[in-house]
Amino acid sequence: MPTYTPPVADTRFVLDKVLGLHAYANLPRFAAATPDMVDAILEEGGRLCAEQFFPLNQSGDAEGCTRHEDGSVTTPTGFREAYRQLAEGGWIGLGAPEAYGGQGLPHVLSVAFEEYLISSNIAFAMYPGLTQGAIAAILVAGSEEQKALYLPRMVAGDWAGTMNLTEPHCGTDLGLIKTRAEPKGDGSYSITGTKILISAGEHDLADNIVHLVLAKLPGAPGGTKGISLFIVPKFLPDAEGRPGARNAVSCGSIEEKMGIHANSTCVMNYDGATGWLIGEANKGLAAMFVMMNAARLGVGLQGLGIAEIAYQNAVAYAKERRQGRALTGPAEPDKPADTLFVHPDVRRMLMEARAGAEGARALALWGALQVDLARHAPEAAEREAADEMISLVTPVIKGHLTDLGYQIATEAQQVFGGHGYIREYGMEQYVRDARIAMIYEGTNGVQAMDLVGRKLPRQGGKAAMALFALIAADIAEAREGAQAELAVRLEKAVGEVQAALMWLMQHGMKDPNNAGAAAYPLMTLMGIVLIGWMWLKMARAAQKGLDAGEGDRAFLDAKLVTARFYAERILPDAGALRRKLEGGAEAVMALPVEAF
Amino acid sequence: MPTYTPPVADTRFVLDKVLGLHAYANLPRFAAATPDMVDAILEEGGRLCAEQFFPLNQSGDAEGCTRHEDGSVTTPTGFREAYRQLAEGGWIGLGAPEAYGGQGLPHVLSVAFEEYLISSNIAFAMYPGLTQGAIAAILVAGSEEQKALYLPRMVAGDWAGTMNLTEPHCGTDLGLIKTRAEPKGDGSYSITGTKILISAGEHDLADNIVHLVLAKLPGAPGGTKGISLFIVPKFLPDAEGRPGARNAVSCGSIEEKMGIHANSTCVMNYDGATGWLIGEANKGLAAMFVMMNAARLGVGLQGLGIAEIAYQNAVAYAKERRQGRALTGPAEPDKPADTLFVHPDVRRMLMEARAGAEGARALALWGALQVDLARHAPEAAEREAADEMISLVTPVIKGHLTDLGYQIATEAQQVFGGHGYIREYGMEQYVRDARIAMIYEGTNGVQAMDLVGRKLPRQGGKAAMALFALIAADIAEAREGAQAELAVRLEKAVGEVQAALMWLMQHGMKDPNNAGAAAYPLMTLMGIVLIGWMWLKMARAAQKGLDAGEGDRAFLDAKLVTARFYAERILPDAGALRRKLEGGAEAVMALPVEAF
Repeated sequence: MPTYTPPVADTRFVLDKVLGLHAYANLPRFAAATPDMVDAILEEGGRLCAEQFFPLNQSGDAEGCTRHEDGSVTTPTGFREAYRQLAEGGWIGLGAPEAYGGQGLPHVLSVAFEEYLISSNIAFAMYPGLTQGAIAAILVAGSEEQKALYLPRMVAGDWAGTMNLTEPHCGTDLGLIKTRAEPKGDGSYSITGTKILISAGEHDLADNIVHLVLAKLPGAPGGTKGISLFIVPKFLPDAEGRPGARNAVSCGSIEEKMGIHANSTCVMNYDGATGWLIGEANKGLAAMFVMMNAARLGVGLQGLGIAEIAYQNAVAYAKERRQGRALTGPAEPDKPADTLFVHPDVRRMLMEARAGAEGARALALWGALQVDLARHAPEAAEREAADEMISLVTPVIKGHLTDLGYQIATEAQQVFGGHGYIREYGMEQYVRDARIAMIYEGTNGVQAMDLVGRKLPRQGGKAAMALFALIAADIAEAREGAQAELAVRLEKAVGEVQAALMWLMQHGMKDPNNAGAAAYPLMTLMGIVLIGWMWLKMARAAQKGLDAGEGDRAFLDAKLVTARFYAERILPDAGALRRKLEGGAEAVMALPVEAF
Repeated sequence: MPTYTPPVADTRFVLDKVLGLHAYANLPRFAAATPDMVDAILEEGGRLCAEQFFPLNQSGDAEGCTRHEDGSVTTPTGFREAYRQLAEGGWIGLGAPEAYGGQGLPHVLSVAFEEYLISSNIAFAMYPGLTQGAIAAILVAGSEEQKALYLPRMVAGDWAGTMNLTEPHCGTDLGLIKTRAEPKGDGSYSITGTKILISAGEHDLADNIVHLVLAKLPGAPGGTKGISLFIVPKFLPDAEGRPGARNAVSCGSIEEKMGIHANSTCVMNYDGATGWLIGEANKGLAAMFVMMNAARLGVGLQGLGIAEIAYQNAVAYAKERRQGRALTGPAEPDKPADTLFVHPDVRRMLMEARAGAEGARALALWGALQVDLARHAPEAAEREAADEMISLVTPVIKGHLTDLGYQIATEAQQVFGGHGYIREYGMEQYVRDARIAMIYEGTNGVQAMDLVGRKLPRQGGKAAMALFALIAADIAEAREGAQAELAVRLEKAVGEVQAALMWLMQHGMKDPNNAGAAAYPLMTLMGIVLIGWMWLKMARAAQKGLDAGEGDRAFLDAKLVTARFYAERILPDAGALRRKLEGGAEAVMALPVEAF
């Protein structure tokens, strides 16, 4: 019953008018991203998602994955064909290097498409998503032979990828892992251990599955300094690089989960499986973090993708469903009742969802552009600055956008009233699916600690200062114009972040628990301000179009209204968040464990 | 895997030290509620819930209800026996009049028990919950014959009850209902129509099911003024009042839902079913509202019940699971890692859950006491004042406590990390089950409109002024003592509510959409302040105990810490909520429908 229309006009608005993609045409990869190419990607990619993958979303949830007695896993009906379409269209390798068969397009375009893929079917989107993460890790840490053997097959979608970190007793604290790798003397290793919660760990979509596995070498140092990364294919490649002998890795069970039922979440048993070291011994976590940082941005995107699809369907329902009358008098007196659309509280929910989803999209695409700049900007200093910037905001994009995705899915479900709780309407699935994004790839609490403990203090807070300078410049330019009120409100919110950071500097050193207790409110505060900044950018771009008489007037007017809504209805949280974190750790930590 | 311990000490603290139950011993019903009786109810009732009903919670969710081809419905394994235990122990009639076989105990005690019942198994709790709602409506609107026929059987649990309001095209807007009642000439009516989302509509727990059904008489006025209430038993009572001929009402299907799988949510088909009018013709909605107001308080209690069980299990997991080290240095250096408990952000989540659940309990019990006073206070003026008070806060208790229940369940799930998403750990069920409480018995948006449009303005705001006077008196008494800081912070939050109400008076008249757009933030704001008030009461009671050297010192100390946490970490939202609602309706309503 739900519907999906890829928000191509909104994506284009951000790419063209807010980020000014055309200004980067001089960079490698961007030259290929001509306006026609961008159109083709968004239009064709969007159509594929809406017409082929979206119709499998509800059926995939209902059917789920099936593990057979031999340990093989069958994905829901239609997934194999859909995966073939995705692979054959070259969509998995959109952002992969041409040298390995990829399209070599900018990351920002890849991300734009990925949003549509997630909106249409998040559980399906995770299969290529995991593969892309594995590609990223092999690209960075793999040897030339490994790249040559694995990447072309993975980019083409013939082989899939996974990441194997979590074990029964440890997730966040990877220093505790027990999986062992014994050298076999021929350059390969024998891998033994149990990994749990492995997304896409086993399935029937690809000819081979390339597991990237964290394990410990004999005599490795304790903790995270003794972790190495191994490549463990399901089928050992033969001399021609074809899937050969079955490796000793198997799916022991698939988990019963709250959502993303169409993605197989596996317990993976490694029983002396053959693997090869990727990168240096004991440096596995660094390589895995390459994959994880990419994955964290991808998970942030899941928040956006679910927010968008949930929003669209709440709008459709509110337009159709008739209950009650407008407070200002019947809007359609000839009908038995007005639509839900007339009720301010319904509008409030729709506007919150809209302002959240559109703002999240701008932030996600801005972040993706930083990734491109970090790789391809002509000057080293520019690359480094972009890298520092995306490194700083990655935990915010992961943490805040997924919080927002869940919140918006919940609110969109609320618009449906009782029908929102019923499976066939599809809304409850979005809530169940959105929930995981706050948990995996590092819980949002871990993101908050990453922000406060690592990212903000790095290089004496250089990246944060650079970020605030960018925001301040936009505010300064906007302060005298038509967007003055928005600029002033954003400035106030930025002031709350800065006051919070000042508090943190003064109190975090004294007692590190103050930093820990401040982490989550600070992450949310930064997320609210970053999206507010995006709304300032969008409002200014819209105003520019209106002033110049260019573009769709109604479309641009709507951006101005939504920006105002964001300023009036979301930015006020900034002050409350600052006051909360200034409460410090005392009341948070005061109770003895026996009191619980 | 989850565990449950009824929080008897916390309930007693609220009943004895905060509400001062003993001071009401002079009232009817309260005389029976001796300390020993209260102990027996809480201890025995709690044990029954924890030992008998809680073990059926996860299995009931997994198994769900089954509709058979003949339209009969089987509840999950163990539910019949559990329901027998509940009925035979007299628990269904705890608060029902002795004249009909009830225990005749104060409502506040009944509510205290009901929290435990919900925590242990919300889907199970709904079966007696619906019956109690039907009992309330028959008590108020039924004839003496109807009371004599139905009440003893329902109070005993031999017969169950339901409420049938919603139809496929209408839920909130009951004026649109199409179900018809034709007089049959013998004093009975022939009822025809379809009702949907009927909780406990059909099941195998009782010998008969008494449906209370809204329908329209021939020639009835349009809208809500033409609705009548009918009693439609599944089996027509014979001359001896035993279940006789099968009535023409049947369950057409049961809905696939997000949660509360063990409760049968039915499409009910009335095909010329025999029914009898309850109360006056065309006055059905008033009678149904008696039931609904009781039901709304019961649903608010569901928020509390789920919050408590989710909190308890998050605590248990945080005490056991080892990940990472305390920021202040290893807490247990001899162990491979510290427990989750050392991490400030985990503590923050646990404290939010704790402050929310304990505060919600105090508010729910305070509200229940108002219900008792509205019925049994010696002076008419006192009864009326209590009635106005509970009427005012009912939408807040329903709306805010269920929002809180979902939020706390989600946060408790978050403490579990990846395991929170996996069925067997039980946390994801709490989230799915908690979600419905924000929707049924009037969505929380409808509650907010009820608060702003009806309850606050009633009698020129008399009840609201009385409420603020009560809060102000407590603040004034506390301002000079040990709870001065809490009192000052609460006073500031009360100031935000009052400023918001002032804004509403000035702007709501001018444009009713301003009131509509302000409703939800105002409801939340009032909820935050009411719970803050309860924390002031609890902190003062704890302090009094500490000063007198009475009671468990650690228990009372914990109340003071949690009150402080609430003041520092929750009350700051009050200011943000006021600022949001002062944004008014403009940006909320500005976009034309085509812009969506």
